[in-house]
Amino acid sequence: MSGLVSDSSGTDWKVYADGVAIRAQQASRALLLVSGAQKNAWLKECARRLRQAPEAVLAANQVDVEQAPGLGLNAAAIDRLRLTPSRMASLATALDEIAAQTDPVGEVIDGEVRPNGLQVRRVRVPLGVVFFIYESRPNVTVDAAAICVKSGNAVILRGGKEAFHSNLALYHLLRDALEATGLPAAAVQLVETTDRGVVGHFLAQSDKIAVTIPRGGKGLIERVMAEARMPVIKHYDGICHVYVDRSADLTMARQIIVNAKCQRPGVCNAAETLLVHREIAPAFLPQAAAELQGAGVELRGCAATRALVPGCRPAAEDDYRTEYLDLILSVRVVDDLAMAIEHIETFGSHHTDAIVTADLAAARKFQLAVDSSAVMVNASTRFNDGGELGLGAEIGISTDKLHARGPCGLRELTSYKYIVEGTGQVRG
Amino acid sequence: MSGLVSDSSGTDWKVYADGVAIRAQQASRALLLVSGAQKNAWLKECARRLRQAPEAVLAANQVDVEQAPGLGLNAAAIDRLRLTPSRMASLATALDEIAAQTDPVGEVIDGEVRPNGLQVRRVRVPLGVVFFIYESRPNVTVDAAAICVKSGNAVILRGGKEAFHSNLALYHLLRDALEATGLPAAAVQLVETTDRGVVGHFLAQSDKIAVTIPRGGKGLIERVMAEARMPVIKHYDGICHVYVDRSADLTMARQIIVNAKCQRPGVCNAAETLLVHREIAPAFLPQAAAELQGAGVELRGCAATRALVPGCRPAAEDDYRTEYLDLILSVRVVDDLAMAIEHIETFGSHHTDAIVTADLAAARKFQLAVDSSAVMVNASTRFNDGGELGLGAEIGISTDKLHARGPCGLRELTSYKYIVEGTGQVRG
Repeated sequence: MSGLVSDSSGTDWKVYADGVAIRAQQASRALLLVSGAQKNAWLKECARRLRQAPEAVLAANQVDVEQAPGLGLNAAAIDRLRLTPSRMASLATALDEIAAQTDPVGEVIDGEVRPNGLQVRRVRVPLGVVFFIYESRPNVTVDAAAICVKSGNAVILRGGKEAFHSNLALYHLLRDALEATGLPAAAVQLVETTDRGVVGHFLAQSDKIAVTIPRGGKGLIERVMAEARMPVIKHYDGICHVYVDRSADLTMARQIIVNAKCQRPGVCNAAETLLVHREIAPAFLPQAAAELQGAGVELRGCAATRALVPGCRPAAEDDYRTEYLDLILSVRVVDDLAMAIEHIETFGSHHTDAIVTADLAAARKFQLAVDSSAVMVNASTRFNDGGELGLGAEIGISTDKLHARGPCGLRELTSYKYIVEGTGQVRG
Repeated sequence: MSGLVSDSSGTDWKVYADGVAIRAQQASRALLLVSGAQKNAWLKECARRLRQAPEAVLAANQVDVEQAPGLGLNAAAIDRLRLTPSRMASLATALDEIAAQTDPVGEVIDGEVRPNGLQVRRVRVPLGVVFFIYESRPNVTVDAAAICVKSGNAVILRGGKEAFHSNLALYHLLRDALEATGLPAAAVQLVETTDRGVVGHFLAQSDKIAVTIPRGGKGLIERVMAEARMPVIKHYDGICHVYVDRSADLTMARQIIVNAKCQRPGVCNAAETLLVHREIAPAFLPQAAAELQGAGVELRGCAATRALVPGCRPAAEDDYRTEYLDLILSVRVVDDLAMAIEHIETFGSHHTDAIVTADLAAARKFQLAVDSSAVMVNASTRFNDGGELGLGAEIGISTDKLHARGPCGLRELTSYKYIVEGTGQVRG
């Protein structure tokens, strides 16, 4: 990419992105010297402002809500977009909870004294600058800023156009609170345009931005992966499986697949495929299928499944590769545990996979061989979540294997450095 | 990239690379079920063969050594290339030492029982397939293969053309030992061509290769960064600093800078720039400079330095950005600690930086504000090394902030997964 890219108003997005990134880098360096108490004071000040002065944010949100039908949002999407006093209060509570979490910065991960007397320790440090690209609800703006700054990072926020006015008002609140509590104001910046041309300029700045975190549809993630010149924390798909083993408690298995599919079908840790051991399929599938169908789930099965389940449509191979994010479930009868593992490794997305079994050897083999961010034994796939796994707030989930895997909370937004203290040691 | 790339002999490098990567992926999956004892048995069998049957490797190395002058290698490079019975024995010893290290796979990093009874633990797992590109000495072939397999990964090795015959013979020894000890033979593969066209095809396979580790000159690293579609662990430069603070013990400071510059000037953790606090420069610089010049070091200094050091050439700004890898040292007098930190953050490469000081507050500020993989207090920069910091063998060093920072040993070649065990828990 050479030269300058401008929009019709003449704004030079490259110059704009450079300025934002430089200010973020300067802020991230200042944050290295900021105490945990100062960061917590900011979080609590933001919570106080959200509770006591929500008017500006609510008014801005009203603009977004009114414009939403014109942007093609349906009623459910408009409901997710809408902020209310009670939702503002929930946002404030989330900030207080992040303030209460242990500061990850400065944690001594491990350390030892070497034979020559050098004291070596690995100490957790911030990553630097996080570029966070997200669609969806305005509460993510507040959560992401809070998690990034608590972990010592400066953040550049790029929200969706449907929440633009809400995001801008929330950003002003967050920034004013930074200034009020003596933190660098550029620790949180919002990209103050919805022009798509600007994103590429941020993705090129690998010397200033440590990591990009895209959260949204597959198209967004693919664009970021193609253009980003810095590391990316991401997940493409959540094609999650529940495998019901020969020895499974069938009532437990039924409860788990119904929960994994139906409790919130639109999220990445919902189940998309049910695998059933051939020997228990006749005892398990008819009743489980009836319960799923009763909950409104459309089933798409292999031939063996269809022989046991009236009204089950045939599954094509593409079904096993599809993240429905809807009340649709692929079903396949497998010969044994090995075939279940092979199916998951072939068609899955390394996100979350569960086995229901009473057999210790089967559980152990499944845990070792299934290469996913979370492997569940006798529990719903829906538990792969920062809150549920004990991380607290999360900024996203990763199906990558380097750096962070699974939910990304405060710790996953840090790096480490070696601190070595000596008394004049030199190498011989 | 579309279509097929062939060399003049008609070999289709894309098909070749696909086949190697698929076999590596299959081997990496098989390695998930292999015990630590089996991996150690392989390491010890390799050591045994290196000691007892070195003839084939030594004969192949002789071919490389004879061809080396034609490839433009100088006497020092040819000496590094040469294998001798005693160097073969050292290789075998290194393998025994890796066998003796704790297996990183399966380590429970942390874990807890959630209020709902779910048992959650984070468990260390292999990354999968490592693509390792290296120049230089054939012993790296053996070290890298050993570290990768010990950490449960399959490795694809791409060595330099000057060591091709040696690498091929070592690879055959490693592979035969895999077969003899019942491990998957494709756990270690060598790219059996020196054609440059093949590398791009490996760098495109992000679905099969978890990480690429390039080790060599900046040109190699830049090419890998431009083409790799998977994460890369790397460092570009080692522009390492020694800052002599106002309160430094001057004898200690002299010993540290002489060691950091001269003990092995051609490596990445050698010092390239000396920063000296203005107040102690008159007491420190003349004697330190004389000692460095006596050791053959060419000094390039700022005006204040040149006023104190006869024979010191002027330093241009580019000097402060240069990794000399040679007996040359940039010198700059700075006003205070803040200016030293600013210099390091502006001109450094985030590799290794040292302060010599008796002042606790200065040490603390330097540790917090200098954003490098290792920060030394009163010790030589040369200690940023896997062996010296207690990691054991290393496959490289990282100046990145995501995943691994500093020396990369067994642990840095692993990821983790969440293992969650329940008794039928579902989300409410």
